[in-house]
Amino acid sequence: MTSKEFHPDWTEKSPAEGTYRSIFKYGDPQHFKHPSDAWYRMMKQDFHLSDADFADKGKEGREPVKLNRPAALKPNQIDALQAIVGKENIELDDYHRVKYASGKTTEEMLELREGIIREVADVVVHPRDKHDVQKLVEYCDKELIPMTVFSAGSSVNFGCRPAKGGVSVVVSTHMNKLLEVNELNQTARVQPGMFGPAYEDALNRAPEVFKTKHRYTCGHFPQSFEYSTVGGWVVTLGSGQASTYYGDAYDIVFSQEYVTPAGIFKTLDYPATATGPKINDIMKGSEGTFGILVEVTMKIFRYMPENRARFSFMYPTWEAAVNASREIMQSEFGKPAIYRISDPEETDRGLKLYGMPGIVDKFLSMKGFKPMQRCLSLGNAEGDKDYTCLVVRKIKAIARKHGAISLGSYASRKWEHTRYTEPYMREDLGDFGIMIDTLETAVTWDNLHRLHEGVRAYVKSRPDTMCMTHASHFYPQGTNLYFIFIAHMDDPDEYRKFQSGIIDHIQKYGGSLSHHHGVGRMIGPWMEKHLGKEQMAVLRALKRHFDPRNIMNPGGQLGLD
Amino acid sequence: MTSKEFHPDWTEKSPAEGTYRSIFKYGDPQHFKHPSDAWYRMMKQDFHLSDADFADKGKEGREPVKLNRPAALKPNQIDALQAIVGKENIELDDYHRVKYASGKTTEEMLELREGIIREVADVVVHPRDKHDVQKLVEYCDKELIPMTVFSAGSSVNFGCRPAKGGVSVVVSTHMNKLLEVNELNQTARVQPGMFGPAYEDALNRAPEVFKTKHRYTCGHFPQSFEYSTVGGWVVTLGSGQASTYYGDAYDIVFSQEYVTPAGIFKTLDYPATATGPKINDIMKGSEGTFGILVEVTMKIFRYMPENRARFSFMYPTWEAAVNASREIMQSEFGKPAIYRISDPEETDRGLKLYGMPGIVDKFLSMKGFKPMQRCLSLGNAEGDKDYTCLVVRKIKAIARKHGAISLGSYASRKWEHTRYTEPYMREDLGDFGIMIDTLETAVTWDNLHRLHEGVRAYVKSRPDTMCMTHASHFYPQGTNLYFIFIAHMDDPDEYRKFQSGIIDHIQKYGGSLSHHHGVGRMIGPWMEKHLGKEQMAVLRALKRHFDPRNIMNPGGQLGLD
Repeated sequence: MTSKEFHPDWTEKSPAEGTYRSIFKYGDPQHFKHPSDAWYRMMKQDFHLSDADFADKGKEGREPVKLNRPAALKPNQIDALQAIVGKENIELDDYHRVKYASGKTTEEMLELREGIIREVADVVVHPRDKHDVQKLVEYCDKELIPMTVFSAGSSVNFGCRPAKGGVSVVVSTHMNKLLEVNELNQTARVQPGMFGPAYEDALNRAPEVFKTKHRYTCGHFPQSFEYSTVGGWVVTLGSGQASTYYGDAYDIVFSQEYVTPAGIFKTLDYPATATGPKINDIMKGSEGTFGILVEVTMKIFRYMPENRARFSFMYPTWEAAVNASREIMQSEFGKPAIYRISDPEETDRGLKLYGMPGIVDKFLSMKGFKPMQRCLSLGNAEGDKDYTCLVVRKIKAIARKHGAISLGSYASRKWEHTRYTEPYMREDLGDFGIMIDTLETAVTWDNLHRLHEGVRAYVKSRPDTMCMTHASHFYPQGTNLYFIFIAHMDDPDEYRKFQSGIIDHIQKYGGSLSHHHGVGRMIGPWMEKHLGKEQMAVLRALKRHFDPRNIMNPGGQLGLD
Repeated sequence: MTSKEFHPDWTEKSPAEGTYRSIFKYGDPQHFKHPSDAWYRMMKQDFHLSDADFADKGKEGREPVKLNRPAALKPNQIDALQAIVGKENIELDDYHRVKYASGKTTEEMLELREGIIREVADVVVHPRDKHDVQKLVEYCDKELIPMTVFSAGSSVNFGCRPAKGGVSVVVSTHMNKLLEVNELNQTARVQPGMFGPAYEDALNRAPEVFKTKHRYTCGHFPQSFEYSTVGGWVVTLGSGQASTYYGDAYDIVFSQEYVTPAGIFKTLDYPATATGPKINDIMKGSEGTFGILVEVTMKIFRYMPENRARFSFMYPTWEAAVNASREIMQSEFGKPAIYRISDPEETDRGLKLYGMPGIVDKFLSMKGFKPMQRCLSLGNAEGDKDYTCLVVRKIKAIARKHGAISLGSYASRKWEHTRYTEPYMREDLGDFGIMIDTLETAVTWDNLHRLHEGVRAYVKSRPDTMCMTHASHFYPQGTNLYFIFIAHMDDPDEYRKFQSGIIDHIQKYGGSLSHHHGVGRMIGPWMEKHLGKEQMAVLRALKRHFDPRNIMNPGGQLGLD
């Protein structure tokens, strides 16, 4: 590779304010992460493209957003909303109506590049506190104005799309404070719109900020950590990368307060109860359809990064990696925090893309760890120092028993550098008509291989389509499978059909419809068949109870209507 | 103490079949456990009684049960029920109608001794399988016949009392099999009426019975283990003595199947999902009010009793014991399985009752561990051998830091001998007009002392009343408090008033209404105030959905009606 070689003109130009691109670009407008040379070579090879195909960018979406759709609300209604939140907390312009209607699905990116705008709200409101929210819900319920909640906007399933217009309620603008750290109970009371990094930073610095004895961590680090909020984690049932130890968002919630059309819903602070079905848990995952989360008390954990112990292994086969992982999760010696295994395609592409010294590759091949068979595993343990040592020692012993070779902490450290930044590449790829997207599912151990093979076969049945899979959230009973697919494809209709086929195959092969992305409107149509008619009827009964006039996030969310 | 001293004539006479006593006696009809001499001395002293007071027994309830209440169901209805389950699975006689209407509350014992019978069902049915249950529910829903489920009958809150008559559905007679052990997923599919010991034994012997590689344990060992069933654990949200490690029944359920008037409700086998509010969790704790649990898949755990590591400590004070326990639960080195701390009164009475060599007592006092200040802690760790060693080592270090002295494994082993048998003493005490009962609550760390003091003060405000408290289920956010009270009291009305006052004070001082006994009809009246109006409305909405004609366990259960 010499400097003479062609390099695509990956953009370094921040999207101008008010443009389509400023809406669909991931993360920090000033931050870019370009495909490496290895990535570029891989794409050219796999998609049979040449440098010429990367000479000109397609539609970049750099035009100003134009909606040309007058708000359907009446002036007196807009006045009333304004009276509640204040004039400075209302937006009626095209750009903000589209911005706060958008998430980060591939479909939205493809369409926004072409200037296609789907449903938006009539007006955007930024409540200042839970009292504002209460007044808004009361008013909208009375006036039958639909409300859709927007927090960080990193939804990948149209969870913040105002399918029926009405009001976009943005909770992250003002309702983003850490209200209290209760050190005795090891809990933190927080507003829903607080972003991950601000929350984690405040907990890490709790001795300075809240005069606590210990430092704390939230324990929840999804890939979207930097562009997701505590409330979003809770209402969509997210999982962090360290969920194998800390639990999913579901497990980390202690108590909650929601404003619903049926009243204020506040649950109690108890470590456990036997007082009937747990109403605290009923609210989690309601995705804005029952009401608006206005405050949540989360469990927090001692922050001891100095004890973190990393590991990585190469397994000879996927079967060996899965078997070892199951043994690790069922052996009762504690749990790692981050724990991942990559299937052969992900392992091989990863090695090519993220680099492995040639001599290591030769050594591995010589030892029988063959390309398109071998599987990478990596992770860490967190907690007390002796505990993390024990967990890693045990994992090493099990890995060895299953034929793995230790790569030390190398791959784990390498992975950490990119743990939050991969989504940034999406725009660069999109500029040249290449899409990268993901779907994910939960599965029991006894169905893992069937599901993996079935979904993978469908994705690979499309010519020139990459499919990389890993499992990254583990339980004694099973894990998740996370499918990443990359293709030369920029037609939204073609994409919709392709994606829909993958969901069909996840369902066909017995995976759950989502392990941690949530349902939104994208997965909604599959819900009833997946859960069963009687089960779906329960969700609808709850919906009718909380929101009898169907104003909360109506129009397909969770497949409710 | 010489053999000349008086010993009460503790009964060794098994209750005759068909008698009141055969209904209220705990456990095995042939098994007795009498108060020790130390117990006897303590009661005489504390209640100012003399040997003369133990010369004659009060009402023993040895008369045959007589109901004199004809069944309110019509003959054709009874015929229809009989046609569903078979003639041999129907009972209409007085004794069985009362037996299957009774639990193990103190109030029931006091009343049955006097021949007082409260609500009973008109007919008792023993369904053979889930298809029978389905037909029964369909028929009863059509005919508006109330159904109340009975499994082991160890309810301590009138959970199986057929408050509106109708049918007692006994699920433990036939529906008591372990259907499947799935070793890959580490789950067991079981019928609701299987008793703890049979279930645990089958799991321990899984290699022989199910050809598994490993032995398994259910991880759930309530005091009522021998007289409770898997289904009962789930629908009442029980906790086992080792819940600090294995989790509460709530955590151990993987998936469930219920027959409800609204149809068959079956949840899916996934280790986690993000597909909206978790309907699997909504059903747990429904106490028979939504439908009848007919099958449940439980998580199971590797059984490695050889690695069990025990510990016990004496702390100088209750504060020290609580602080150390909190530190243990929050330090992120893993969790003990059994973990208990006893307050000063329980510690001192325990030492007197269960014996401690005089020299140890002297030594402890000399070292500053003073009576009515010092607190006993005991427990064990389970799992991998290195893990249990680590956990116990860490607990020891924290205990020492908080001024405790190690008692080795002595107290822990001693406790294990009586872990399931304490309830047997109840009948002996009752024969001489002494009641022993318990109430329990969950609490966060920051409210523990206030609640403990508040409830204790109320109990102790009654003259000559013992009140022993321990905490026995721990979480990073708090624990439970388990109050044991013993008094010279045999009037049901006086008892009701006394007990009601304790519940009032648990509520007043901010405890949950139950940590693991459930609600039943006893706690029902406190529910709405406890949970809040809006929260209770959600439970009622679910009830209306599943059971619109209110036939499932109607009449106050969970405070629903």
